[in-house]
Amino acid sequence: MAIHAGVVGVGPVGDRIMRCVKERNLPLAEPLRIMATRCRVEEDFGGEKVVEVCETCADMFEGLDVVFFAGREGAKGASVQWREAVEKAGAVAIDNGSDFRMDPAVPLVVPEVNMDAVTADTKFIASPNCSTIQMVVALAPLHRAAGIKRIVVSTYQAVSGWGQAAMEELGRQLPQYCESGCPEFDPAIFTRPIALDCIPHIDRFDPSGYTKEELKMVNETKKILSAPEIKITATTVRVPVEVGHAEAINIEFESDITAEEALEILRDPVKSPGVVVVDGPTCDPNAESCRNAPTELQYPTQRDILKDEWKDMVLVGRVRDDETVEHGLNLWVVADNLRKGAATNVVQIAQEMIARGLLG
Amino acid sequence: MAIHAGVVGVGPVGDRIMRCVKERNLPLAEPLRIMATRCRVEEDFGGEKVVEVCETCADMFEGLDVVFFAGREGAKGASVQWREAVEKAGAVAIDNGSDFRMDPAVPLVVPEVNMDAVTADTKFIASPNCSTIQMVVALAPLHRAAGIKRIVVSTYQAVSGWGQAAMEELGRQLPQYCESGCPEFDPAIFTRPIALDCIPHIDRFDPSGYTKEELKMVNETKKILSAPEIKITATTVRVPVEVGHAEAINIEFESDITAEEALEILRDPVKSPGVVVVDGPTCDPNAESCRNAPTELQYPTQRDILKDEWKDMVLVGRVRDDETVEHGLNLWVVADNLRKGAATNVVQIAQEMIARGLLG
Repeated sequence: MAIHAGVVGVGPVGDRIMRCVKERNLPLAEPLRIMATRCRVEEDFGGEKVVEVCETCADMFEGLDVVFFAGREGAKGASVQWREAVEKAGAVAIDNGSDFRMDPAVPLVVPEVNMDAVTADTKFIASPNCSTIQMVVALAPLHRAAGIKRIVVSTYQAVSGWGQAAMEELGRQLPQYCESGCPEFDPAIFTRPIALDCIPHIDRFDPSGYTKEELKMVNETKKILSAPEIKITATTVRVPVEVGHAEAINIEFESDITAEEALEILRDPVKSPGVVVVDGPTCDPNAESCRNAPTELQYPTQRDILKDEWKDMVLVGRVRDDETVEHGLNLWVVADNLRKGAATNVVQIAQEMIARGLLG
Repeated sequence: MAIHAGVVGVGPVGDRIMRCVKERNLPLAEPLRIMATRCRVEEDFGGEKVVEVCETCADMFEGLDVVFFAGREGAKGASVQWREAVEKAGAVAIDNGSDFRMDPAVPLVVPEVNMDAVTADTKFIASPNCSTIQMVVALAPLHRAAGIKRIVVSTYQAVSGWGQAAMEELGRQLPQYCESGCPEFDPAIFTRPIALDCIPHIDRFDPSGYTKEELKMVNETKKILSAPEIKITATTVRVPVEVGHAEAINIEFESDITAEEALEILRDPVKSPGVVVVDGPTCDPNAESCRNAPTELQYPTQRDILKDEWKDMVLVGRVRDDETVEHGLNLWVVADNLRKGAATNVVQIAQEMIARGLLG
């Protein structure tokens, strides 16, 4: 059954939503309605050379089954302004913004983890923060197996998490850096040049000294896993990478789980949907040539999300026993922050709702 | 009293040692003897336009009081080949290499932390790994105050930690990246392009799945702090930054210590030598203009080590209470891996030995 869908926002996430809708064959009864603050023609958007963008207004939602929110209106997400209008039009809203994620009445959904939070009555669904999504996709199967007690996470987050302007800022600074080794201070987006530096500051600071990005990882993870008892502490860092977030995650479990057992779970596509394990020897450990070779291991990096088969997946590697705590593990988790961390996730929610007869 | 000193190695660390010797006015009776695998003339080295480099041989150590090892001979540090010759010549060796750090007979020294490990009998001193040095300078004062129980650390390490060839590799790839967004695969140093990607792999893999860099942080920290009971787990990551390492450190203490108390200790130059705190509001919290401004905090980044007054210091920021564990703290620690992480540390050891009458 074909549906009528729209997207509000024409930044990198809007672009990726349009690509995902096509790639994943979301059954559309009419072309995706693309909306933004102003009417305009966008070039090279969503895999199309020229795309017509309409000004967002209540009338634009008429006849739609689902609206993806992927844009800002001033300092807030577009859903703050348009949520009611979408509901009046009878459409379901799937929001990539952060404004309603912690609202107890709003399900916060990662389809691989907690799709059951969406029911026939659900009219508004929040999609989590990019750094949260990739962490819970990797950790949910391990939580089911051994119960997570505490998480210490440090992130390596691409500039595209901020949006198009941040990607352009890095793009402007890189040639300056190549020429002079010292890009001009350009305060448009980041507090200092991001080429080539790591900035431990994502989103605003909270009075606690943590950033809102760090608190999102804490609070959203607990909500998605329905596990308020899990202890989580985070340090989130912007790195000079265009697309793709990486996370070094240290986990203490309630019950015993070894790196080997964790790898077995993560390699099982039924137990760990959306996960690809990139770990283990780079050669066949049974081959003589490998036994004689130096020990080298595979691991994922942010560039790996450019591979077509991995672009919507959460890549896990560097799975190690951590003997410094009872039932401890270390992991390295990588995903495309614009796709699985945003666009893919909202399109997957719509797909899964269609499959469950909740949409259209 | 002036001393006779030499350095083996003309990579980035050798360069910084020569600069530190001059900047810190190490009292020299003759110019620093610069040695390497082959005789040659180096241009633009150690702050000089032209420098004569002699071939390392036993005769070159005659008459020296101290030799700094800052180079490799094949896969091992130069000290493996030349340690005995230096001892025969009656000189003290201060080794930046990793070969003897865990030898129980060899003191592993960070002057701000454990200078007392050096005695009148000491003829060979090891300088720790760069990522270890900056961590122990920041943590030793807190360990003295509250006793460290467990450390979880994730690093953001500059390419210069590998040496000159790695800096050139990043330098070659950056213009390619600017042009095509995809640097050619260049396997000279790293396993994949470092522009612009983060690679969770520094030094070789150990059979445990940890890298040797990660195990250095574990084992060296315990030795320097004389605290084998501390639990440490590390994930070390190469980032596209030329110079400067950053570390996100989560610490569990034996007894109570708040972020505020930790900041007070770290700001005290007697309790915390070598540390600069870059934390707290960006404006005077008592000023009305600040009370009305959004909460923003200072923090250090790798680029800050370019500041002349900070180039030999360990910068600490993002000091936060971690409520997920009893007596927990999070820190962000930054230093110049070539200077405080290597060259400054070995020159400081020599300075302190002179001050204690142990050299010259």
